Amino acid sequence: MKNILDVISQTPLFGGLPADQLQAIRAIAVTRRFDKGERIFSEGQPGSGFYVVMSGRIKIFKVSAEGKEQILHIFGPGEPFGEVPVFSGKPFPANAEAIAPSQLLFFPKQAFIALTSATPSLALNMLAVLSLRLRQFTVQIENLSLKEVPGRLASYLIYLAAEQAAADTVALTISKGQLASLLGTIPETLSRMMAKMAGMGLIEVEGRTIRLLDRDALENLARTGKLMGIDG
Amino acid sequence: MKNILDVISQTPLFGGLPADQLQAIRAIAVTRRFDKGERIFSEGQPGSGFYVVMSGRIKIFKVSAEGKEQILHIFGPGEPFGEVPVFSGKPFPANAEAIAPSQLLFFPKQAFIALTSATPSLALNMLAVLSLRLRQFTVQIENLSLKEVPGRLASYLIYLAAEQAAADTVALTISKGQLASLLGTIPETLSRMMAKMAGMGLIEVEGRTIRLLDRDALENLARTGKLMGIDG
Repeated sequence: MKNILDVISQTPLFGGLPADQLQAIRAIAVTRRFDKGERIFSEGQPGSGFYVVMSGRIKIFKVSAEGKEQILHIFGPGEPFGEVPVFSGKPFPANAEAIAPSQLLFFPKQAFIALTSATPSLALNMLAVLSLRLRQFTVQIENLSLKEVPGRLASYLIYLAAEQAAADTVALTISKGQLASLLGTIPETLSRMMAKMAGMGLIEVEGRTIRLLDRDALENLARTGKLMGIDG
Repeated sequence: MKNILDVISQTPLFGGLPADQLQAIRAIAVTRRFDKGERIFSEGQPGSGFYVVMSGRIKIFKVSAEGKEQILHIFGPGEPFGEVPVFSGKPFPANAEAIAPSQLLFFPKQAFIALTSATPSLALNMLAVLSLRLRQFTVQIENLSLKEVPGRLASYLIYLAAEQAAADTVALTISKGQLASLLGTIPETLSRMMAKMAGMGLIEVEGRTIRLLDRDALENLARTGKLMGIDG
């Protein structure tokens, strides 16, 4: 079995915290075992605390009115779950069940809140840890998106121009967040790609209005998915 | 110009906070303008506060001993920067400069810390916001990685087997984090893929030792990049 402090220091929530704060978090952690098929918490229950998986596998799921189960996530070693409702003071939005014999670390909400109140720098350090990770993930998504998103964006703009019977100016009819999701990326990456395409003279963006400045280049991009210089 | 409260509520750091906390954050925000080419902060300076871009574009860069500039990030509207060192109490690790006329929101460190101390639920809510976003990004990276990572992982395992002159058992010589980065994904996704491949009888994982159970299937996966059922 892995050392509890190792598990804590390797989970994305706490990784990178100073040693004394890791120890303080270790001090409030409780080990819990669950059999395969055992329920951990249910939708609507008050969030009494959050978990980190030490071993095993946990499914997070909802059950529809017709009794159909929909799995939202499966979490494995090192991964936290239940922390979003616990931090935001909301009840659990879904059910959690062990799908293999599992050992979990449980962090009781009250003890965690008392710890962050007594040690204000803990919450700030956790914010730093999560912000840094978020930034790294943004870069990762951008790198992964670079291959396909510019082509998909070009296709979508050409489709919009046809649909709106417009020669060269289209109006986005959905929010930037929705468009990013439709194209398989995130708003930050979409913004950066649009800025690059604008910088290359392909489009001009003004709010939700986009002018298609170089139709040939956009059609080529939609066809080949290649935008010279977009990753340079 | 965009409403300051809109910018605050749409930035990943604060999006989803309750209205009264957004107002409290608005109350400590200071608007600052920078000309193109103007320095915002320099490497090594104490982090006196962090920024959110309202308009314009900011480059974050380092300068090598030889005077060569390396750009780390370019941030645009809605994006925060400088918050990681400020939250963790460290000096700025790089320089920031406006590459277009820019308007920024500045959040002074002391006022922000005073605010989180006076309102403990603010830090917890921010942790909830960042945790949720991190989870969404993890799913996004997993979806983007599914196409190529299993094939790359299979190739890497076959390469390791050849290099280690092993018939069917290889030892990973790098950490899981490094391997994830090498394959273009993140540790969480790599773990999940390995678990799936293990569940399908392709490999058996024990710590850093991996047994190649079905060499033909792995070679096929490395060649075609397709793993039946990996995304099902």
